[in-house]
Amino acid sequence: MAVNLPPPDRASLHAVPGVELGVAIAGIRKPGRKDLLVMRLAPGARAAGVFTRNRFCAAPVVLAKKHLKNPVRALVVNTGNANAGTGKDGLRRALEVCKAVSGRIRARPDQVLPFSTGVIMEPLAADRIVAALPGLRDGDWLDAAEAIMTTDTVPKAASRKIGLSGGEATITGIAKGAGMIRPDMATLLGFLATDAKLPQAALKRMVKRVADRSFNCVTVDGDTSTNDSFVLVATGAGPSAASSKDLSRLEEAITAVARQLAQAIIRDGEGATKFVTVAVERGRSEAECRRVAYAIAHSPLVKTAFFASDPNLGRILAAIGYAGIAGLDVSRVDLFLDKVLVARQGARNPSYAEQEANEVMKKPEFTVRVVLNRGKAAATVWTCDLSYDYVKINAEYRT
Amino acid sequence: MAVNLPPPDRASLHAVPGVELGVAIAGIRKPGRKDLLVMRLAPGARAAGVFTRNRFCAAPVVLAKKHLKNPVRALVVNTGNANAGTGKDGLRRALEVCKAVSGRIRARPDQVLPFSTGVIMEPLAADRIVAALPGLRDGDWLDAAEAIMTTDTVPKAASRKIGLSGGEATITGIAKGAGMIRPDMATLLGFLATDAKLPQAALKRMVKRVADRSFNCVTVDGDTSTNDSFVLVATGAGPSAASSKDLSRLEEAITAVARQLAQAIIRDGEGATKFVTVAVERGRSEAECRRVAYAIAHSPLVKTAFFASDPNLGRILAAIGYAGIAGLDVSRVDLFLDKVLVARQGARNPSYAEQEANEVMKKPEFTVRVVLNRGKAAATVWTCDLSYDYVKINAEYRT
Repeated sequence: MAVNLPPPDRASLHAVPGVELGVAIAGIRKPGRKDLLVMRLAPGARAAGVFTRNRFCAAPVVLAKKHLKNPVRALVVNTGNANAGTGKDGLRRALEVCKAVSGRIRARPDQVLPFSTGVIMEPLAADRIVAALPGLRDGDWLDAAEAIMTTDTVPKAASRKIGLSGGEATITGIAKGAGMIRPDMATLLGFLATDAKLPQAALKRMVKRVADRSFNCVTVDGDTSTNDSFVLVATGAGPSAASSKDLSRLEEAITAVARQLAQAIIRDGEGATKFVTVAVERGRSEAECRRVAYAIAHSPLVKTAFFASDPNLGRILAAIGYAGIAGLDVSRVDLFLDKVLVARQGARNPSYAEQEANEVMKKPEFTVRVVLNRGKAAATVWTCDLSYDYVKINAEYRT
Repeated sequence: MAVNLPPPDRASLHAVPGVELGVAIAGIRKPGRKDLLVMRLAPGARAAGVFTRNRFCAAPVVLAKKHLKNPVRALVVNTGNANAGTGKDGLRRALEVCKAVSGRIRARPDQVLPFSTGVIMEPLAADRIVAALPGLRDGDWLDAAEAIMTTDTVPKAASRKIGLSGGEATITGIAKGAGMIRPDMATLLGFLATDAKLPQAALKRMVKRVADRSFNCVTVDGDTSTNDSFVLVATGAGPSAASSKDLSRLEEAITAVARQLAQAIIRDGEGATKFVTVAVERGRSEAECRRVAYAIAHSPLVKTAFFASDPNLGRILAAIGYAGIAGLDVSRVDLFLDKVLVARQGARNPSYAEQEANEVMKKPEFTVRVVLNRGKAAATVWTCDLSYDYVKINAEYRT
């Protein structure tokens, strides 16, 4: 069902020096599927992250944020259970997992970042994770991407190499997520690693900016998860990115990988049959453009019209109208579907023929472009449609 | 499909002295169905209204707000076309309808309030409305309720009589709406009339308070319509409500009728199979309680869990967590499903058995109760589930 999203080619995913991957079948929720990933980091590696702002943030998120203050030696990720809405007992179980992982790599428990994804408000079977650790088998990035899938239908991984002044650096990342996607710092789970060496302060600034230009621009259903986490690792095993030119080249490449992953999440959004770019232009601020874009991207009525390829585009005008933009003069708003001018100055374009919009909407990918004509700011959000299968997947998720 | 919503009993809907109803088949969108209603008001009647705050508010809403400043003599309502997103041409067409109606009752065009509901961004066939006016046939309140239906499966009307110091007063109202329901002033269309006589200023204050306690407490899909309008008419043909005791009795009865209509809209929500009350208690302000209640009521994940009777109630915690309540201490939050304590102090109640919640959710009506434990305010919102049929209805709306 995923929209223009073939599985990643294993050979295209470059290993990142300084990162070792191990996967296992721990039987956390369902038997016989990879559900555990451990990323071991070489000594000297640096990590920075951004996390959900959901107040019910999960126990592993609480610990990961805390442990990031130390030199990180491993990340451990389980699927099948989010360990969220679990109170103090959840923290205890997450720490138990960190302890077990640290014991196998001669590190301290507070040098391990835990991550969980799956059902909320159920106790995490930490004992199963601990029992599975001795059976971890070495894997590559595609194995890693597969090990963190939940309702995803396609594993999500991306990779590239870039030249820095000190030599070639590698960037490879994985992500998961298909529902409960409206990241408010980062996506459900995203992990990017590079072998470049860069200062901790630069890494910290970079991860925030990258998230804002990738994972923070997507939405499936408007539900911000309790477990959103995006971590960027720089192992330092490769070339140094010391100059500002190197840093900006690196950031650009990392953003491209992150954006590819973020878009992959939407292409594989629960029940998605369309990949839709919502671009809002000429607003007074980026914030108001984002607000309009999200109002459109979250409207169930707009999303079902996308699904049906039905150019019932007045629903988009209605969403713009209730986005809460103070002083918006709707008689200046233009609406395009790809290149088709649907509404001009707030009303139906007299020369618009519905057949044109219908042709655009039948495509698996198209752009909704809103021109507010009141400023110079712009923002883009990527989203998908709302189909029968979204309801089916989420009505039957736990059965 | 509507949840516990039998069609209104014709005999239970009391005529309101001072109001005459006429309905017609104008063929505005689909042939052979009642799609036009005219409510004629006796001279001396007073009216007050609340309207959508959607910036793309429809042409008839613009005119109705303006014409309310005059002594109102008629309301004219069409279905099949919302006359929204239609710019100046839309205003011209709405005025044409007012003129035609006023010509038949010896009033001025600006004494007629126009209302439209249906597809957005298509030109209104005002000529068909004008042509249908001579064929209006006298109807009662059930006919009127039927004439304003769009995707509604059941006509919505309610009525009661109350004793005032000067005699018995009648209150009867109708409403329509099933999708694009998240009123931000009023519902899609709601009209209430009483024969009581009361000062214009009191009527104006009353309509706002009644809306806040009825139509402004419901949501189907979070989409605020371009056409939301709620009008309260007091014909003055009956007893006077001059004392403050009379006024408060009258307001209470009008609120009860309005609430019954608002809840009927949710019971008949597009694709609805469950009627869910979301009560949020012990918050710091009513506003924050409403915010939490709407986060729950709008979450597609929560709504699909309602549909499936699946107590995947961690999704409710997640929605509370992203509702944006500053300083919310989740370790104090309790969650009930009817009387079942699901989560206590932010985590799963140790003695909670999922089977209990499942029993509650299988019922067609139940209450989600959230106790924030940080203040004394409360708020209640009524909503429905998200089913396959919601997608079906909205994907196929125009076909």
